Amino acid sequence: MKPLIVVFAGGTSGPWRIQRIDAVIGESLPVTERLAVLEGESRLPVEVDWVLRGVTSNERYVNGAERATLTDRQAGLGRPEARCAALIPIKKSETWWEFTQETRRGIFEERSRHIATSLHYLPAVARRLHHGRDLGEPFDFLTWFEYAPAHAEAFEELVGKLRETEEWAYVEREVDIRLVRDSHP
Amino acid sequence: MKPLIVVFAGGTSGPWRIQRIDAVIGESLPVTERLAVLEGESRLPVEVDWVLRGVTSNERYVNGAERATLTDRQAGLGRPEARCAALIPIKKSETWWEFTQETRRGIFEERSRHIATSLHYLPAVARRLHHGRDLGEPFDFLTWFEYAPAHAEAFEELVGKLRETEEWAYVEREVDIRLVRDSHP
Repeated sequence: MKPLIVVFAGGTSGPWRIQRIDAVIGESLPVTERLAVLEGESRLPVEVDWVLRGVTSNERYVNGAERATLTDRQAGLGRPEARCAALIPIKKSETWWEFTQETRRGIFEERSRHIATSLHYLPAVARRLHHGRDLGEPFDFLTWFEYAPAHAEAFEELVGKLRETEEWAYVEREVDIRLVRDSHP
Repeated sequence: MKPLIVVFAGGTSGPWRIQRIDAVIGESLPVTERLAVLEGESRLPVEVDWVLRGVTSNERYVNGAERATLTDRQAGLGRPEARCAALIPIKKSETWWEFTQETRRGIFEERSRHIATSLHYLPAVARRLHHGRDLGEPFDFLTWFEYAPAHAEAFEELVGKLRETEEWAYVEREVDIRLVRDSHP
Protein backbone atom coordinates (compact mmCIF):
# COMPACT_ATOMS: atom_id res chain seq x y z
CA MET A 1 0.00 0.00 0.00
CA LYS A 2 1.46 3.30 -1.10
CA PRO A 3 0.98 6.27 1.21
CA LEU A 4 -2.33 7.99 0.50
CA ILE A 5 -2.72 11.68 1.18
CA VAL A 6 -6.11 12.44 2.72
CA VAL A 7 -7.56 15.92 3.15
CA PHE A 8 -10.24 16.56 5.77
CA ALA A 9 -12.04 19.76 4.80
CA GLY A 10 -14.45 21.34 7.30
CA GLY A 11 -16.93 23.77 5.73
CA THR A 12 -20.29 23.88 4.04
CA SER A 13 -20.06 20.73 1.91
CA GLY A 14 -19.34 17.03 2.24
CA PRO A 15 -21.37 13.94 3.13
CA TRP A 16 -20.64 14.13 6.87
CA ARG A 17 -22.61 16.46 9.14
CA ILE A 18 -20.62 17.65 12.14
CA GLN A 19 -22.48 17.13 15.40
CA ARG A 20 -19.90 18.56 17.76
CA ILE A 21 -16.28 19.63 18.04
CA ASP A 22 -14.76 19.30 21.52
CA ALA A 23 -11.36 20.44 22.67
CA VAL A 24 -10.13 17.54 24.80
CA ILE A 25 -6.62 18.93 25.39
CA GLY A 26 -5.52 22.41 24.26
CA GLU A 27 -7.03 24.55 21.56
CA SER A 28 -10.15 23.50 19.61
CA LEU A 29 -10.91 23.91 15.91
CA PRO A 30 -13.45 26.42 14.57
CA VAL A 31 -17.04 25.21 14.57
CA THR A 32 -18.32 24.33 11.13
CA GLU A 33 -21.17 22.36 9.55
CA ARG A 34 -19.93 19.62 7.30
CA LEU A 35 -16.86 17.57 6.49
CA ALA A 36 -15.53 16.35 3.16
CA VAL A 37 -12.93 13.57 3.18
CA LEU A 38 -10.82 13.81 0.03
CA GLU A 39 -8.36 11.11 -0.97
CA GLY A 40 -5.35 11.72 -3.18
CA GLU A 41 -4.98 14.89 -5.15
CA SER A 42 -8.65 15.90 -4.98
CA ARG A 43 -9.59 19.53 -5.35
CA LEU A 44 -10.75 21.33 -2.25
CA PRO A 45 -14.38 22.40 -1.94
CA VAL A 46 -14.83 26.14 -2.53
CA GLU A 47 -15.83 27.14 1.00
CA VAL A 48 -13.79 25.67 3.80
CA ASP A 49 -13.30 26.82 7.38
CA TRP A 50 -10.33 24.55 7.99
CA VAL A 51 -8.31 21.88 6.27
CA LEU A 52 -6.34 19.09 7.95
CA ARG A 53 -4.05 16.82 5.99
CA GLY A 54 -2.54 13.45 6.77
CA VAL A 55 -1.00 10.52 4.99
CA THR A 56 -1.55 6.82 5.51
CA SER A 57 1.89 5.28 5.84
CA ASN A 58 3.79 2.16 6.78
CA GLU A 59 3.04 0.73 10.21
CA ARG A 60 5.22 1.93 13.05
CA TYR A 61 4.37 -0.22 16.08
CA VAL A 62 2.42 -3.42 15.36
CA ASN A 63 4.30 -6.70 15.48
CA GLY A 64 3.55 -9.68 13.27
CA ALA A 65 1.08 -11.36 15.65
CA GLU A 66 -0.79 -8.12 16.25
CA ARG A 67 -0.98 -7.41 12.55
CA ALA A 68 -2.37 -10.88 11.82
CA THR A 69 -5.12 -10.38 14.41
CA LEU A 70 -5.90 -6.89 13.13
CA THR A 71 -6.10 -8.05 9.53
CA ASP A 72 -8.33 -10.93 10.55
CA ARG A 73 -10.78 -8.82 12.54
CA GLN A 74 -10.91 -5.29 11.19
CA ALA A 75 -13.60 -3.91 8.89
CA GLY A 76 -13.02 -1.45 6.07
CA LEU A 77 -14.32 2.09 5.79
CA GLY A 78 -17.58 2.87 4.00
CA ARG A 79 -19.89 0.20 5.45
CA PRO A 80 -23.51 1.31 4.82
CA GLU A 81 -24.47 0.78 8.46
CA ALA A 82 -21.52 2.80 9.79
CA ARG A 83 -23.32 6.15 9.78
CA CYS A 84 -21.39 7.55 12.76
CA ALA A 85 -17.83 8.81 12.52
CA ALA A 86 -15.20 10.50 14.65
CA LEU A 87 -12.17 12.46 13.53
CA ILE A 88 -9.67 12.78 16.37
CA PRO A 89 -6.66 14.99 15.60
CA ILE A 90 -3.80 14.60 18.08
CA LYS A 91 -0.45 16.28 18.63
CA LYS A 92 2.14 14.61 20.82
CA SER A 93 4.88 16.37 22.76
CA GLU A 94 8.50 16.83 21.68
CA THR A 95 9.42 14.50 24.57
CA TRP A 96 7.48 11.73 22.84
CA TRP A 97 9.19 12.30 19.52
CA GLU A 98 12.63 12.34 21.09
CA PHE A 99 12.14 8.88 22.55
CA THR A 100 13.72 6.01 20.63
CA GLN A 101 11.44 3.67 18.69
CA GLU A 102 11.69 0.97 21.39
CA THR A 103 10.78 3.43 24.17
CA ARG A 104 7.78 4.63 22.18
CA ARG A 105 6.68 1.05 21.48
CA GLY A 106 7.09 0.24 25.19
CA ILE A 107 4.79 3.07 26.25
CA PHE A 108 2.37 2.60 23.33
CA GLU A 109 1.76 -1.11 23.68
CA GLU A 110 3.57 -2.88 26.51
CA ARG A 111 2.35 -0.31 29.06
CA SER A 112 -0.65 1.43 27.46
CA ARG A 113 -2.05 -1.56 25.51
CA HIS A 114 -3.15 0.67 22.66
CA ILE A 115 -3.39 -2.18 20.16
CA ALA A 116 -4.66 -4.85 22.58
CA THR A 117 -7.43 -2.55 23.85
CA SER A 118 -8.46 -1.50 20.33
CA LEU A 119 -8.71 -5.13 19.21
CA HIS A 120 -11.70 -5.64 21.53
CA TYR A 121 -13.69 -3.11 19.49
CA LEU A 122 -13.17 -4.80 16.13
CA PRO A 123 -14.88 -5.15 13.74
CA ALA A 124 -17.51 -2.75 15.19
CA VAL A 125 -15.20 0.27 14.98
CA ALA A 126 -13.36 0.72 11.67
CA ARG A 127 -10.32 2.98 11.76
CA ARG A 128 -7.77 4.65 9.52
CA LEU A 129 -4.69 6.46 10.77
CA HIS A 130 -3.18 9.45 8.96
CA HIS A 131 0.22 10.95 9.80
CA GLY A 132 0.66 14.72 9.67
CA ARG A 133 3.85 15.57 11.55
CA ASP A 134 6.26 15.16 8.65
CA LEU A 135 3.90 17.19 6.44
CA GLY A 136 4.32 20.20 8.72
CA GLU A 137 0.69 19.91 9.85
CA PRO A 138 -0.54 21.19 13.24
CA PHE A 139 -1.51 17.65 14.26
CA ASP A 140 0.77 14.58 14.30
CA PHE A 141 -2.11 12.15 13.78
CA LEU A 142 -5.61 12.27 12.39
CA THR A 143 -7.50 9.12 13.29
CA TRP A 144 -10.76 8.51 11.49
CA PHE A 145 -13.28 6.08 12.97
CA GLU A 146 -16.56 4.76 11.52
CA TYR A 147 -19.19 2.78 13.42
CA ALA A 148 -22.90 2.02 13.45
CA PRO A 149 -25.19 3.94 15.85
CA ALA A 150 -25.60 0.70 17.82
CA HIS A 151 -21.89 0.79 18.68
CA ALA A 152 -21.74 4.42 19.77
CA GLU A 153 -21.47 3.45 23.43
CA ALA A 154 -18.68 0.96 22.77
CA PHE A 155 -16.78 3.68 20.89
CA GLU A 156 -17.06 6.06 23.89
CA GLU A 157 -15.64 3.31 26.07
CA LEU A 158 -12.69 2.83 23.70
CA VAL A 159 -11.71 6.51 23.57
CA GLY A 160 -12.23 6.77 27.34
CA LYS A 161 -9.84 3.87 27.95
CA LEU A 162 -7.16 5.24 25.62
CA ARG A 163 -7.29 8.67 27.29
CA GLU A 164 -6.47 7.08 30.64
CA THR A 165 -3.23 5.49 29.42
CA GLU A 166 0.38 6.48 30.04
CA GLU A 167 0.67 7.15 26.28
CA TRP A 168 -1.89 9.95 26.61
CA ALA A 169 0.40 11.83 29.04
CA TYR A 170 2.36 12.75 25.89
CA VAL A 171 -0.67 14.15 24.05
CA GLU A 172 -0.47 17.93 24.17
CA ARG A 173 -3.40 18.71 21.89
CA GLU A 174 -6.49 16.68 21.12
CA VAL A 175 -9.71 17.63 19.38
CA ASP A 176 -12.68 15.27 19.13
CA ILE A 177 -15.00 15.78 16.15
CA ARG A 178 -18.18 13.71 15.89
CA LEU A 179 -20.09 13.26 12.68
CA VAL A 180 -23.08 11.53 11.12
CA ARG A 181 -23.79 10.65 7.54
CA ASP A 182 -27.25 11.55 6.34
CA SER A 183 -27.45 9.00 3.57
CA HIS A 184 -25.29 6.44 1.82
CA PRO A 185 -22.62 7.90 -0.41
CA MET B 1 13.83 18.73 16.99
CA LYS B 2 10.86 19.50 14.80
CA PRO B 3 10.78 17.99 11.32
CA LEU B 4 12.64 20.22 8.87
CA ILE B 5 11.67 20.24 5.22
CA VAL B 6 14.72 20.35 2.97
CA VAL B 7 14.64 21.00 -0.76
CA PHE B 8 17.50 19.83 -2.98
CA ALA B 9 17.37 21.85 -6.20
CA GLY B 10 19.58 20.82 -9.11
CA GLY B 11 20.15 23.55 -11.69
CA THR B 12 22.40 26.49 -12.43
CA SER B 13 22.80 27.91 -8.93
CA GLY B 14 23.85 26.87 -5.45
CA PRO B 15 27.15 26.50 -3.59
CA TRP B 16 27.68 22.86 -4.58
CA ARG B 17 29.15 21.92 -7.95
CA ILE B 18 27.96 18.55 -9.21
CA GLN B 19 30.84 16.30 -10.27
CA ARG B 20 28.84 13.28 -11.35
CA ILE B 21 25.42 11.67 -11.19
CA ASP B 22 25.45 7.85 -11.33
CA ALA B 23 22.46 5.56 -11.56
CA VAL B 24 23.35 2.76 -9.13
CA ILE B 25 20.00 0.95 -9.37
CA GLY B 26 17.25 1.95 -11.81
CA GLU B 27 16.73 5.27 -13.50
CA SER B 28 19.14 8.18 -13.04
CA LEU B 29 18.40 11.89 -12.65
CA PRO B 30 19.06 14.48 -15.38
CA VAL B 31 22.58 15.82 -15.50
CA THR B 32 22.90 19.35 -14.17
CA GLU B 33 25.59 21.71 -12.90
CA ARG B 34 24.93 22.86 -9.39
CA LEU B 35 22.92 22.05 -6.30
CA ALA B 36 21.20 24.35 -3.82
CA VAL B 37 20.17 22.91 -0.45
CA LEU B 38 17.24 24.91 0.91
CA GLU B 39 15.95 24.45 4.44
CA GLY B 40 12.42 25.26 5.53
CA GLU B 41 10.14 27.29 3.36
CA SER B 42 12.87 28.78 1.18
CA ARG B 43 12.04 29.96 -2.31
CA LEU B 44 13.29 27.87 -5.18
CA PRO B 45 16.02 29.22 -7.47
CA VAL B 46 14.63 30.41 -10.80
CA GLU B 47 16.24 27.79 -13.03
CA VAL B 48 16.06 24.22 -11.83
CA ASP B 49 16.37 20.92 -13.68
CA TRP B 50 15.01 18.87 -10.83
CA VAL B 51 13.83 19.24 -7.26
CA LEU B 52 13.89 16.57 -4.57
CA ARG B 53 12.24 17.10 -1.19
CA GLY B 54 12.62 15.35 2.12
CA VAL B 55 11.95 15.94 5.77
CA THR B 56 14.15 15.24 8.78
CA SER B 57 12.01 13.32 11.22
CA ASN B 58 12.01 11.29 14.40
CA GLU B 59 14.37 8.33 14.49
CA ARG B 60 12.95 5.02 13.34
CA TYR B 61 15.59 2.39 14.13
CA VAL B 62 18.33 3.43 16.57
CA ASN B 63 18.15 2.15 20.11
CA GLY B 64 19.29 4.07 23.17
CA ALA B 65 22.88 2.77 23.20
CA GLU B 66 23.31 3.39 19.47
CA ARG B 67 21.95 6.89 19.81
CA ALA B 68 24.32 7.69 22.67
CA THR B 69 27.30 6.58 20.57
CA LEU B 70 26.08 8.48 17.52
CA THR B 71 25.52 11.66 19.52
CA ASP B 72 28.95 11.31 21.07
CA ARG B 73 30.82 10.79 17.80
CA GLN B 74 29.00 12.51 14.97
CA ALA B 75 29.93 15.87 13.47
CA GLY B 76 27.48 18.47 12.23
CA LEU B 77 27.01 19.72 8.67
CA GLY B 78 28.84 22.78 7.40
CA ARG B 79 32.42 22.09 8.61
CA PRO B 80 34.77 24.30 6.57
CA GLU B 81 37.04 21.34 5.71
CA ALA B 82 34.14 19.16 4.53
CA ARG B 83 34.26 20.35 0.91
CA CYS B 84 33.02 17.04 -0.54
CA ALA B 85 29.42 15.94 -0.41
CA ALA B 86 27.19 13.14 -1.65
CA LEU B 87 23.43 13.12 -2.09
CA ILE B 88 22.14 9.57 -2.33
CA PRO B 89 18.41 9.29 -3.09
CA ILE B 90 16.99 5.82 -2.50
CA LYS B 91 13.63 4.16 -3.03
CA LYS B 92 12.88 0.89 -1.28
CA SER B 93 10.47 -1.78 -2.49
CA GLU B 94 6.87 -2.25 -1.41
CA THR B 95 8.00 -5.51 0.21
CA TRP B 96 10.23 -3.52 2.54
CA TRP B 97 7.45 -1.16 3.53
CA GLU B 98 5.03 -4.00 4.18
CA PHE B 99 7.39 -5.54 6.73
CA THR B 100 6.61 -4.82 10.38
CA GLN B 101 8.88 -2.43 12.26
CA GLU B 102 10.67 -5.30 14.02
CA THR B 103 11.35 -7.11 10.74
CA ARG B 104 12.73 -3.91 9.20
CA ARG B 105 14.92 -3.27 12.24
CA GLY B 106 16.14 -6.89 12.08
CA ILE B 107 17.25 -6.54 8.48
CA PHE B 108 18.53 -2.96 8.90
CA GLU B 109 20.72 -3.48 11.92
CA GLU B 110 20.88 -7.01 13.36
CA ARG B 111 21.67 -8.48 9.93
CA SER B 112 22.95 -5.58 7.80
CA ARG B 113 24.74 -3.62 10.58
CA HIS B 114 23.78 -0.32 8.98
CA ILE B 115 24.33 1.70 12.17
CA ALA B 116 27.34 -0.29 13.47
CA THR B 117 29.14 0.01 10.13
CA SER B 118 28.40 3.73 9.81
CA LEU B 119 29.75 4.39 13.31
CA HIS B 120 33.26 3.48 12.11
CA TYR B 121 33.22 6.46 9.76
CA LEU B 122 32.36 9.05 12.40
CA PRO B 123 33.18 11.87 12.80
CA ALA B 124 34.85 11.95 9.36
CA VAL B 125 31.57 11.56 7.47
CA ALA B 126 28.72 13.83 8.59
CA ARG B 127 25.25 12.79 7.56
CA ARG B 128 21.65 13.95 7.54
CA LEU B 129 18.70 11.76 6.58
CA HIS B 130 15.57 13.14 4.90
CA HIS B 131 12.34 11.17 4.44
CA GLY B 132 10.36 11.58 1.23
CA ARG B 133 7.95 8.65 1.01
CA ASP B 134 5.10 10.21 3.00
CA LEU B 135 5.51 13.44 1.01
CA GLY B 136 4.68 11.59 -2.21
CA GLU B 137 8.24 12.04 -3.48
CA PRO B 138 9.87 9.66 -5.98
CA PHE B 139 12.52 8.69 -3.40
CA ASP B 140 11.86 7.34 0.11
CA PHE B 141 15.15 8.69 1.49
CA LEU B 142 17.58 11.43 0.59
CA THR B 143 20.80 10.99 2.53
CA TRP B 144 23.21 13.90 2.50
CA PHE B 145 26.85 13.29 3.44
CA GLU B 146 29.70 15.80 3.94
CA TYR B 147 33.38 14.94 4.31
CA ALA B 148 36.86 16.36 3.74
CA PRO B 149 38.78 15.39 0.57
CA ALA B 150 41.13 13.38 2.80
CA HIS B 151 38.25 11.07 3.73
CA ALA B 152 36.96 10.48 0.20
CA GLU B 153 38.36 6.94 0.14
CA ALA B 154 36.81 6.09 3.50
CA PHE B 155 33.47 7.32 2.21
CA GLU B 156 33.70 5.03 -0.86
CA GLU B 157 34.38 2.14 1.49
CA LEU B 158 31.29 2.98 3.56
CA VAL B 159 28.88 3.16 0.62
CA GLY B 160 30.45 0.01 -0.84
CA LYS B 161 29.85 -1.91 2.40
CA LEU B 162 26.25 -0.75 2.70
CA ARG B 163 25.48 -1.76 -0.88
CA GLU B 164 26.55 -5.34 -0.11
CA THR B 165 24.08 -5.76 2.74
CA GLU B 166 20.83 -7.69 2.89
CA GLU B 167 19.06 -4.35 3.43
CA TRP B 168 20.15 -3.24 -0.05
CA ALA B 169 18.25 -6.13 -1.65
CA TYR B 170 15.16 -4.00 -0.94
CA VAL B 171 16.51 -0.92 -2.70
CA GLU B 172 14.81 -0.63 -6.07
CA ARG B 173 16.20 2.73 -7.12
CA GLU B 174 19.41 4.47 -6.09
CA VAL B 175 21.15 7.50 -7.55
CA ASP B 176 24.56 8.66 -6.35
CA ILE B 177 25.32 12.37 -6.76
CA ARG B 178 28.78 13.66 -5.87
CA LEU B 179 29.52 17.29 -5.22
CA VAL B 180 32.27 19.71 -4.23
CA ARG B 181 32.05 23.13 -2.70
CA ASP B 182 34.23 25.72 -4.37
CA SER B 183 34.62 27.97 -1.37
CA HIS B 184 33.33 28.31 2.14
CA PRO B 185 29.72 29.47 2.39
